[in-house]
Amino acid sequence: MTRIGIIGAGQLGRMMALAAYPLGLKVRFVDTHADSPGGQVGDILIGALDDGDRLDELASVVDVVTFDVENVGAEHIDRLAAQRPFLPPPRALSIAQDRLNEKTCFTDLGIPTPRYRAVDTREDLDDAVSHVGIPLVLKTRRLGYDGRGQRVVRNEEELEDAFDALSGVPLIAESLIELEGEVSAIAVRSRGGEVRHYPLSFNVHEGGILRWSTAPHNDEALEKEALIYINKILEAVDYTGILTVEFFIENGRLLANEMAPRVHNSGHWTIEGAVTSQFENHIRAVAGLPLGATTPRGYSAMVNFLGQMPSAPDVLALNGTHLHDYGKSPRPGRKLGHATVNADSAAARDEKLKALLQLIEP
Amino acid sequence: MTRIGIIGAGQLGRMMALAAYPLGLKVRFVDTHADSPGGQVGDILIGALDDGDRLDELASVVDVVTFDVENVGAEHIDRLAAQRPFLPPPRALSIAQDRLNEKTCFTDLGIPTPRYRAVDTREDLDDAVSHVGIPLVLKTRRLGYDGRGQRVVRNEEELEDAFDALSGVPLIAESLIELEGEVSAIAVRSRGGEVRHYPLSFNVHEGGILRWSTAPHNDEALEKEALIYINKILEAVDYTGILTVEFFIENGRLLANEMAPRVHNSGHWTIEGAVTSQFENHIRAVAGLPLGATTPRGYSAMVNFLGQMPSAPDVLALNGTHLHDYGKSPRPGRKLGHATVNADSAAARDEKLKALLQLIEP
Repeated sequence: MTRIGIIGAGQLGRMMALAAYPLGLKVRFVDTHADSPGGQVGDILIGALDDGDRLDELASVVDVVTFDVENVGAEHIDRLAAQRPFLPPPRALSIAQDRLNEKTCFTDLGIPTPRYRAVDTREDLDDAVSHVGIPLVLKTRRLGYDGRGQRVVRNEEELEDAFDALSGVPLIAESLIELEGEVSAIAVRSRGGEVRHYPLSFNVHEGGILRWSTAPHNDEALEKEALIYINKILEAVDYTGILTVEFFIENGRLLANEMAPRVHNSGHWTIEGAVTSQFENHIRAVAGLPLGATTPRGYSAMVNFLGQMPSAPDVLALNGTHLHDYGKSPRPGRKLGHATVNADSAAARDEKLKALLQLIEP
Repeated sequence: MTRIGIIGAGQLGRMMALAAYPLGLKVRFVDTHADSPGGQVGDILIGALDDGDRLDELASVVDVVTFDVENVGAEHIDRLAAQRPFLPPPRALSIAQDRLNEKTCFTDLGIPTPRYRAVDTREDLDDAVSHVGIPLVLKTRRLGYDGRGQRVVRNEEELEDAFDALSGVPLIAESLIELEGEVSAIAVRSRGGEVRHYPLSFNVHEGGILRWSTAPHNDEALEKEALIYINKILEAVDYTGILTVEFFIENGRLLANEMAPRVHNSGHWTIEGAVTSQFENHIRAVAGLPLGATTPRGYSAMVNFLGQMPSAPDVLALNGTHLHDYGKSPRPGRKLGHATVNADSAAARDEKLKALLQLIEP
């Protein structure tokens, strides 16, 4: 009986737990609230995510430690990793926690990215402008997600505003890509080094937050590129678990935007849309079990519910729609749940997606 | 937020809870052990299933009461039903709890069954023999499941033995059917009277316990018969939730064997093999939500793990196999878990089923 410790009890942890139970595994969370999404469906130790004693207590009652949130302090990660397998590996986390490390890793591995330059001072900013050009995006190197901690810069005036708003912490300037779209590559690697890939999903963002994804995004050329790139990362850090890499598409080629060393919102469609979900495969990997098939089942679309949940009866009345309510209280922009639709053709899937979107954007 | 009370925290309740969580619903069990299959994944009130105070406490903290076990005392059912919606309805439960009521219900509704006769005394037994003939099956009217509380009688001597073994409680004699096979019909009815049917599953028993099921069992004629029969029951008792009817096949026609007013082992394949699982549809129905599509996804087979679990890595190494470990301790003959395989054709499914069966019957 393997017991899985999960740092953070948000919706990702919750869905990991729901995938772990059928495998006969036990789950223990650490988070601040018993009524967190994970705490509602699993055992939880109440404590702050930077409470070293609580994290040690977690390590003492589980066989392997994984996480729902990326922002675990380096000192805690190292101490946990000394006690139990900490997976995905600390190195992957330290790369993903810092946009400069992330971009450097991509570059070192020969994975194309938008042009970028570190910005610590006002002088660095000028240097960055001459290197990456304008328009650019100025971002905090750490703790940014869902569009937070970043500013688009299209002229000199916006440059000053952005620097004023964000400076004081290490920044990174990245060239702003004229997007043709954005896709996610999600792969899973077992403790023994076996790798499986989900088909690419195509992602639509609004205000920096994922709005919806469709999968599989059937583009053989992109699929082939993504597979090569993600494999390089998996091998470079001797990865275990689910790894997500978000790519921009520019001129029909991929540019790596960021990586998440965890299950990812753009992979929620795999619960009903793939033979084995990203959550189950993450759990299988960290628990040392054989990986499951990542083959898609039909064509899927996933829609995020942000800020408020639609009426559950309305969602469920749409034939073949799968509702996932994370049990969170509403707050503007907050990810409260999602729904997935599935069909035998992309066209039929798109019809269902349209009906679902009409529910939340009438 | 609907809170669902579940009497009994066995594997059926566990899988109901796992289906309820994504819908944003809360679950509370009553059962004797915190470490029961349901208690491992949900909130539980510890108490005996005939502990009226505990059942009242359950009713006081939930919005609707359903059950994992059928053997809830009539006096408790009535008291619970006076406090909260008790679904499936008490009448369905009282019919299913007693094989004579069950057969009488079938007969009253024009649903063919094996010939049967109530047996309370030695005289009744002779009467039953002349009515149903030998071979027959002598069964206790109540509390029988998985082949317990029944004896096959093929001659006069076995008749005496069977009567000696079982008498003392009300019995029923049923003619022994020369089976061509056995199928389950599973349907769900909403509070508002909407009905959906799963395709028939074909069931293989050993020693009275379900060993494996395959679905869909594509036989249009049987499907049509089963639909008519199960609809009659659903309407007759103004049913809400999942209803299962097990049928014998004799000379290409259906004979109703028994009904279960609940999710059923022969429907476990629906978790991965249908658009909406029997567990989710049961929860949707009792919670007053719209029903989900019962359309099959490919061809499925479900294999029970009895007495001992196979090695999880061995099961999971079979490509596309879904493991369900109920978290129970091993005991001879005990249902500890199941696995489901799924494929695009019946032939490919049968190959996977064969590989799975070889794991447990090497």
